[in-house]
Amino acid sequence: MTGRLWRSLWVAGLLFLQVNPGYGRQIPCRDPLSLWHDRPVKQAIVNFVRQVIDPADAAYVPPRDRIVTIDMDGTLLCERPSSVGMVFAESLLEELAEAPQLLGRQPFDAARQDRLNALRKEHFELFFGMSGAGLEEDAVRQKVRTLARQGRHPRFDRPYGELFYGPMLQLVSYLVQNDFIVYVLSGSDQTVVRTLCAERPEFAGMPPSRFIGTLVALDVDYGTSGPVFYRLARELEPVNLRKGKALNILYRIGQQPILAIGNSSGDCGMLASTLRSGYPATLRMLLNHDDAEREYAYPRASDSDAEICREQAGADILSISMRDDFEQVFPFDSGL
Amino acid sequence: MTGRLWRSLWVAGLLFLQVNPGYGRQIPCRDPLSLWHDRPVKQAIVNFVRQVIDPADAAYVPPRDRIVTIDMDGTLLCERPSSVGMVFAESLLEELAEAPQLLGRQPFDAARQDRLNALRKEHFELFFGMSGAGLEEDAVRQKVRTLARQGRHPRFDRPYGELFYGPMLQLVSYLVQNDFIVYVLSGSDQTVVRTLCAERPEFAGMPPSRFIGTLVALDVDYGTSGPVFYRLARELEPVNLRKGKALNILYRIGQQPILAIGNSSGDCGMLASTLRSGYPATLRMLLNHDDAEREYAYPRASDSDAEICREQAGADILSISMRDDFEQVFPFDSGL
Repeated sequence: MTGRLWRSLWVAGLLFLQVNPGYGRQIPCRDPLSLWHDRPVKQAIVNFVRQVIDPADAAYVPPRDRIVTIDMDGTLLCERPSSVGMVFAESLLEELAEAPQLLGRQPFDAARQDRLNALRKEHFELFFGMSGAGLEEDAVRQKVRTLARQGRHPRFDRPYGELFYGPMLQLVSYLVQNDFIVYVLSGSDQTVVRTLCAERPEFAGMPPSRFIGTLVALDVDYGTSGPVFYRLARELEPVNLRKGKALNILYRIGQQPILAIGNSSGDCGMLASTLRSGYPATLRMLLNHDDAEREYAYPRASDSDAEICREQAGADILSISMRDDFEQVFPFDSGL
Repeated sequence: MTGRLWRSLWVAGLLFLQVNPGYGRQIPCRDPLSLWHDRPVKQAIVNFVRQVIDPADAAYVPPRDRIVTIDMDGTLLCERPSSVGMVFAESLLEELAEAPQLLGRQPFDAARQDRLNALRKEHFELFFGMSGAGLEEDAVRQKVRTLARQGRHPRFDRPYGELFYGPMLQLVSYLVQNDFIVYVLSGSDQTVVRTLCAERPEFAGMPPSRFIGTLVALDVDYGTSGPVFYRLARELEPVNLRKGKALNILYRIGQQPILAIGNSSGDCGMLASTLRSGYPATLRMLLNHDDAEREYAYPRASDSDAEICREQAGADILSISMRDDFEQVFPFDSGL
């Protein structure tokens, strides 16, 4: 009798699990946002996710429309003193500056004469487009991977691929577990975005189409093993910043996000796009860099950025404080 | 005893189905390509699909890499005497030609004077970009939908949304059922591609990001309900034809297709991309329009196109004959 009872219970349990394959997800063994302090921002995120995944809630959003857009530089990973895309562009420029046929041409001359900082401020658009001119796209990808693994951040002395923020990576995993469709939307060279994010296991399951950056113009040759791509000395429109982010959401995703997270005025167009989603509950957030001790503090820029974003994307933008909301900044801080 | 036996069988069956949720797919009740004649092309497709979905086969491809790219005009639907995108651009031009501020400007003057055919040949690129200049993007989408439902094809006297080829729609469904990731890659205005394909239930479950066309430049205004997009009078690079298709596969998909289907030299770059997939079994096909009775015959153009494609994408391109391989051309032919 006891044997039969146990067997019935076992079969019933098996059936239950099979019929409810997502059941396990709803009872997390541990806090899925453990790297966030229990403060209003974390509460707002958890409440938002609970609402949109609950079919009984008026704010329910079906999985196919759970679009999230997240900025990369300064939102997912450290962008100071220079974004990884910029570090990469500068390292390529310095490497190429030695080529005699580039003498007298910018930005290679500036690279030779170490005036890159000044030129970068004046001609931001030169950098991604010009820096790899003539290189094969596969070689560029390989160089980015090497930089991500071997380049060292001047202050933290870690490879650039380790400078992602732990709480943000945890948030990405939490969203993916709840069937959100996560896009990374960055002003940086798209090849840098894809290659850098591919270093993190949290992004490993996502197809490359989820990583959208500024495109560098390429030319194509046809070889016996398919097209070979070479970099031209310019970028393609739109540069993926400000209204370019709103445009690329339309062009490349074709669905409006219900959640958008950025850290500067370059992200306002993306935050504003949430207002077009047509769903009652949407969330817009800006990460405020106010933690000089663990990362950097550049609050004044963020304040004016938040002002511009409020004009374009509404007043209810949630501000994430790195100092107060992040229990950990970098995974290497806690030896994870 | 009989009752217990039946119950055990029932439970065992339930468990089996739950443990093997994909099992039903592997024994199709009917031929999934019933609209294709039993000829070498159909056999090649079925063999290819069986190979890449079989984990025990050396040519196995995991679902995340089962990328398919299919051209739209002339491959998925009728493009004669004019593609739907072109019909749409012309109808917009004729509508806008009456605006006094556009007097003396091309292509509006040509539209007024009915010289559009000549102008189209000389300045193909004017059409998509210029035709909707100044219009709000949402209004364009609405106009395309109206054309797809209410415009009539001059010969078949059916709405343009019904001019998809039945066998090709069936092939799309067959691929989707086998966990292929289908992209439509068209030289036409992307808004036309997305809106037109959304009319067909075979594409209904696919996100808009799967429909890639030529982009028209847009400007953005920020309203209280998010960004509002207006058409500028030009297109963005790359035009999604020839090498533009190879570029957009890299830019927008970031994975190379294992199967590509087109019908003209505009598709060669896309066919060539399959050679970069890194998988042993890939398939490239061109649809040959050789059926004047049921659709159109323009075999000579296709022959020279196939020649260009063979140079760029290899000699083993499979030619689909509309006359010999399609049991049905349009769904309305058989009253489906």
